[in-house]
Amino acid sequence: MTQHSGGGRPGRSAVRRVGVLTSGGDAPGMNAAIRAVVRTCVSLGIEPIGVERGLHGLVHGQVRALDGRSVSGIIYRGGTMLRTARSEEFRTAEGRAQAIETIRRVGMDGLVAIGGNGTYKGMAALAAECSVAIVGVPGTIDNDISGTLYTIGFDTAVNTALDSIDRIRDTSEAHERVFVIEVMGREAGFIAMESGLAGGAEAVLVPELPVNMDELCESVRRWQADGKKSCIIVVAEGAASGADVAACIERGSGVPARLTVLGYIQRGGRPTARDRSLATRLGYHAVRLLAEGQRSIAVGISEGENVCACSLDKAITGRRLLPPEMGEIATVTAG
Amino acid sequence: MTQHSGGGRPGRSAVRRVGVLTSGGDAPGMNAAIRAVVRTCVSLGIEPIGVERGLHGLVHGQVRALDGRSVSGIIYRGGTMLRTARSEEFRTAEGRAQAIETIRRVGMDGLVAIGGNGTYKGMAALAAECSVAIVGVPGTIDNDISGTLYTIGFDTAVNTALDSIDRIRDTSEAHERVFVIEVMGREAGFIAMESGLAGGAEAVLVPELPVNMDELCESVRRWQADGKKSCIIVVAEGAASGADVAACIERGSGVPARLTVLGYIQRGGRPTARDRSLATRLGYHAVRLLAEGQRSIAVGISEGENVCACSLDKAITGRRLLPPEMGEIATVTAG
Amino acid sequence: MTQHSGGGRPGRSAVRRVGVLTSGGDAPGMNAAIRAVVRTCVSLGIEPIGVERGLHGLVHGQVRALDGRSVSGIIYRGGTMLRTARSEEFRTAEGRAQAIETIRRVGMDGLVAIGGNGTYKGMAALAAECSVAIVGVPGTIDNDISGTLYTIGFDTAVNTALDSIDRIRDTSEAHERVFVIEVMGREAGFIAMESGLAGGAEAVLVPELPVNMDELCESVRRWQADGKKSCIIVVAEGAASGADVAACIERGSGVPARLTVLGYIQRGGRPTARDRSLATRLGYHAVRLLAEGQRSIAVGISEGENVCACSLDKAITGRRLLPPEMGEIATVTAG
Amino acid sequence: MTQHSGGGRPGRSAVRRVGVLTSGGDAPGMNAAIRAVVRTCVSLGIEPIGVERGLHGLVHGQVRALDGRSVSGIIYRGGTMLRTARSEEFRTAEGRAQAIETIRRVGMDGLVAIGGNGTYKGMAALAAECSVAIVGVPGTIDNDISGTLYTIGFDTAVNTALDSIDRIRDTSEAHERVFVIEVMGREAGFIAMESGLAGGAEAVLVPELPVNMDELCESVRRWQADGKKSCIIVVAEGAASGADVAACIERGSGVPARLTVLGYIQRGGRPTARDRSLATRLGYHAVRLLAEGQRSIAVGISEGENVCACSLDKAITGRRLLPPEMGEIATVTAG
Repeated sequence: MTQHSGGGRPGRSAVRRVGVLTSGGDAPGMNAAIRAVVRTCVSLGIEPIGVERGLHGLVHGQVRALDGRSVSGIIYRGGTMLRTARSEEFRTAEGRAQAIETIRRVGMDGLVAIGGNGTYKGMAALAAECSVAIVGVPGTIDNDISGTLYTIGFDTAVNTALDSIDRIRDTSEAHERVFVIEVMGREAGFIAMESGLAGGAEAVLVPELPVNMDELCESVRRWQADGKKSCIIVVAEGAASGADVAACIERGSGVPARLTVLGYIQRGGRPTARDRSLATRLGYHAVRLLAEGQRSIAVGISEGENVCACSLDKAITGRRLLPPEMGEIATVTAG
Repeated sequence: MTQHSGGGRPGRSAVRRVGVLTSGGDAPGMNAAIRAVVRTCVSLGIEPIGVERGLHGLVHGQVRALDGRSVSGIIYRGGTMLRTARSEEFRTAEGRAQAIETIRRVGMDGLVAIGGNGTYKGMAALAAECSVAIVGVPGTIDNDISGTLYTIGFDTAVNTALDSIDRIRDTSEAHERVFVIEVMGREAGFIAMESGLAGGAEAVLVPELPVNMDELCESVRRWQADGKKSCIIVVAEGAASGADVAACIERGSGVPARLTVLGYIQRGGRPTARDRSLATRLGYHAVRLLAEGQRSIAVGISEGENVCACSLDKAITGRRLLPPEMGEIATVTAG
Repeated sequence: MTQHSGGGRPGRSAVRRVGVLTSGGDAPGMNAAIRAVVRTCVSLGIEPIGVERGLHGLVHGQVRALDGRSVSGIIYRGGTMLRTARSEEFRTAEGRAQAIETIRRVGMDGLVAIGGNGTYKGMAALAAECSVAIVGVPGTIDNDISGTLYTIGFDTAVNTALDSIDRIRDTSEAHERVFVIEVMGREAGFIAMESGLAGGAEAVLVPELPVNMDELCESVRRWQADGKKSCIIVVAEGAASGADVAACIERGSGVPARLTVLGYIQRGGRPTARDRSLATRLGYHAVRLLAEGQRSIAVGISEGENVCACSLDKAITGRRLLPPEMGEIATVTAG
Repeated sequence: MTQHSGGGRPGRSAVRRVGVLTSGGDAPGMNAAIRAVVRTCVSLGIEPIGVERGLHGLVHGQVRALDGRSVSGIIYRGGTMLRTARSEEFRTAEGRAQAIETIRRVGMDGLVAIGGNGTYKGMAALAAECSVAIVGVPGTIDNDISGTLYTIGFDTAVNTALDSIDRIRDTSEAHERVFVIEVMGREAGFIAMESGLAGGAEAVLVPELPVNMDELCESVRRWQADGKKSCIIVVAEGAASGADVAACIERGSGVPARLTVLGYIQRGGRPTARDRSLATRLGYHAVRLLAEGQRSIAVGISEGENVCACSLDKAITGRRLLPPEMGEIATVTAG
């Protein structure tokens, strides 16, 4: 990964017309990234083009010109003003050919794609078939993209999950039951681990670590015997089904267990300061990198919180791992 | 219902030692009510006694003396510092006899019971068998208690549900899908109706009004055709299962539907200003009414937002109804 | 005040084209009221016209046609999409003549004015000079309008102030100092009293009650001696300057006092469920009343939380009073 | 700075009894750090001792034994359960001699000090005069401590400031005025820059960058002429007085300017996920480092978000600088 220094007055831009799209699941902060891309384009004399509904819109030519004013009042809103959609067509050569036709027709020579792993893979395929310069910006609540310490939306999702954990803690203390909270995270346990650690959860189950239900039931019995006032188990959906965990605890420990599945509330909401700041910085650098002539790369936040870039190929082959000490720290501090 | 005027210096109190308990499901603001009961007791020279775990604790003699300081720092916390529990024993004559023994042993001549309909029924049974003076304080998120316009916890629960609706609106607009949100409310649709109206939900299903799924699917199809940007359906658990509604919409309209079940997060959290204020006022009046010699009554908020009282018997036989115009207003303003 | 029953299918509407404006200080929930006015108009076949910048825009003819779609996505936003402004011109006969010319030119036969006391007075003057049917909707965070128990924006402002009190409580407990928090309220102490009561403030100073600084300093000394962990004084700007109170306490008690002036943050923010619901109901009824042929009235929420109406003249001459028991309850429960 | 790897089973601990204190201004997350210190001590067989009121309590022997249960229920609370205070005495040799006597009497061989720059300086002085092993943990909302990318409390303070900016944006758009918001930060502009960037502020004034009021007034005039809907200026208290900035803008641009001084609300509140997670990790590593025999060091978060340590001396001589590109990015994206 190379650190990118964004300051200073740039020379003549390598691109003249840059498309921007959001794809895959929406994430809080995507609007802030769109805003930064558009306004940085304007400041460099580049024309920004909005592509609606992600790769689907690229295939079907759903584009519109944007200017600095058209992104006013969106920095504090969740969702994405450009909307997003899944696109089966884009996975086919025919679909991508249509997308390339859109790019050609509109005259885009640069493209900023904000999304997760699936979006990056689509962009890598497109880059192999087309001359448009592409920069990927990591936008997903899951935080599981290689080449960046944090993805846009992760901090907001963790705080949303944490808010729910705090609320359930109140009820848990009042009622002396076990509460199981299932959070998002099919492949990665970042949301579960960070919200569980910060919420003081008694246990956190993540896909990256082995789940031992017998030990967990044994712990629940011991906590109950010790007079622990409340008990919250956070489960990433990829580690186990929350319903199974609750049933298993009731059966194995005799303590009543209640389930909450947070679901889609983790995707929305006013983005946190950190997500807006990260999105703004990444959007800014994405355009600067295009202007400097870079292509087929992904931006990220890295060593020392600097913005960095790596190749798209590297971004889609690597895997962002949960720091190994987190599980240990969560266990020790749960007391 | 009689309005109660709480001001002025009272004469000699009719009670000397007053127990306070929370029972049934916990509700945000119960702590504020406990605090007001305890401090009003102290100000009138009455000894406040805390009963732990509601009716269960009354049966099993789990009591402790409280003072003004012991309720510091709880006004802004959800849950209940006295905990709560369901009690099967209290429904039996033997259980209630044990509870009466606790009351006699501790020397309580007054009792403030904070809870919902089940708690009120238990108190009515107790009042028939024992000389202790009882005041019920309505504490439940469901808002379904007769003799009061609002119950403690309702406003917080509605705002929690609303916060989730707002978050899901972001994603709904980004993705152009239907989102079904199931909220609490087995018998009553207050949470669903207020949060749905305030969240601009496209439809609200409540137990009090007939549910016509065919019409709903037809509406979803029409909204989709009209280009409506998002579609949120709020369902009270007592009206229909959220899962059934989502499945039915997908089948009937062809539009993908996603489900969120808010569950226990609606029970907890920092209480709103209104719930703390209501709880404080009701707790204060409950003790004043006991001091004035009242017994077997329930307090509430009523005409002109004054505090009022009615008999416990009236409170448990009546039913608080959803204002009939709410459904009409929700439909008209959903546009 | 007369209760208004809004249900049922209305007959032929008495008005065909209804203007809507927001005037005076903005208040959270004004957007929800605009939305309800517009959509209720549409549902009754009335044309809704938006007047920009309040009375200023009425004088200067700043109007635009609205439809159901133009008020999408505003229910959860603070501020007002129609903007607001003070208008000196409207206080003159010439200014009002210009406004009447706007009304005539646009063909408005009805007008919904959302604002506070000043707005109502302007409307009463206009009603005397012009045949347009006017309904006032109470929109101000101060809650000081006669003819309604609650104004739109009050609940949100109280919760915003309360959130700040809760935050400062943390620091107050950590540091053992006095914290003085000045909140809005020139004539009325509603925000101060409700947020102070709900925040467990040790004292609340409001314009409606005498302020005795010597007694307050004496109390601060006593609390300090008793080992009270924290001390928060909430002051309505109309009762005293927060800076003066802080200086006076430092001088009179020897305990360091820190000041926070909440200022404009009390005006904004996502409206609470209650403010959105109240605004929606009042907006709906305002249009229904116009359609039924009413004129020169103000709507409000009243006895039993029903929507009611009184004459504009009554609304501007009466005064909404702080319930007298609130001060007593705040003192008793502060412990 | 050296990265610290905290995993694995440690050998025999180098310390047996470890004191923990919070000093200086309180910061959200200090409680989470205390909790992690105490529970990590317990897990390693070390006795944790709480020192009340920071350096003041160390001088005056205000200590108490803690255990895992005594830090239950504090992770989500602002402030600090150990309280904090300024201590003039500790700056004198006599005061420190008393503190050393406390340490000797209690038998502490390790000390974790959570605070800002002033606390670190006190600890460096103590370390030179006493054999106790000291680890500093960076706890201050200002984010201006060398040797760490982030301090405990910063993320919460930025989000609190951002919440206020978002609220004022609503009113700003409704009223078309300039709003000046003064935030904390005497030496450092981190809070101002991050909240201003994330809030889309039109300008951010920080101590690290030159302030040109003429240019700012000129910009305000231009924005007004361009029809920009709102204008928010965020000012760090160390860059200029908010009142002066507001007065200057009114005079220089003719546009009315309103001032809000956020003050102490920035210090309190439920800590964010990030602050709790950071505090938990740093508290854990602080104790592990003591157990490994380290002394006179400060922990921090650094390269690649790993926990690291540097000497206390280095921490108090260096200065954490605002990333230079932030000002440029804020300007470009403000549009």
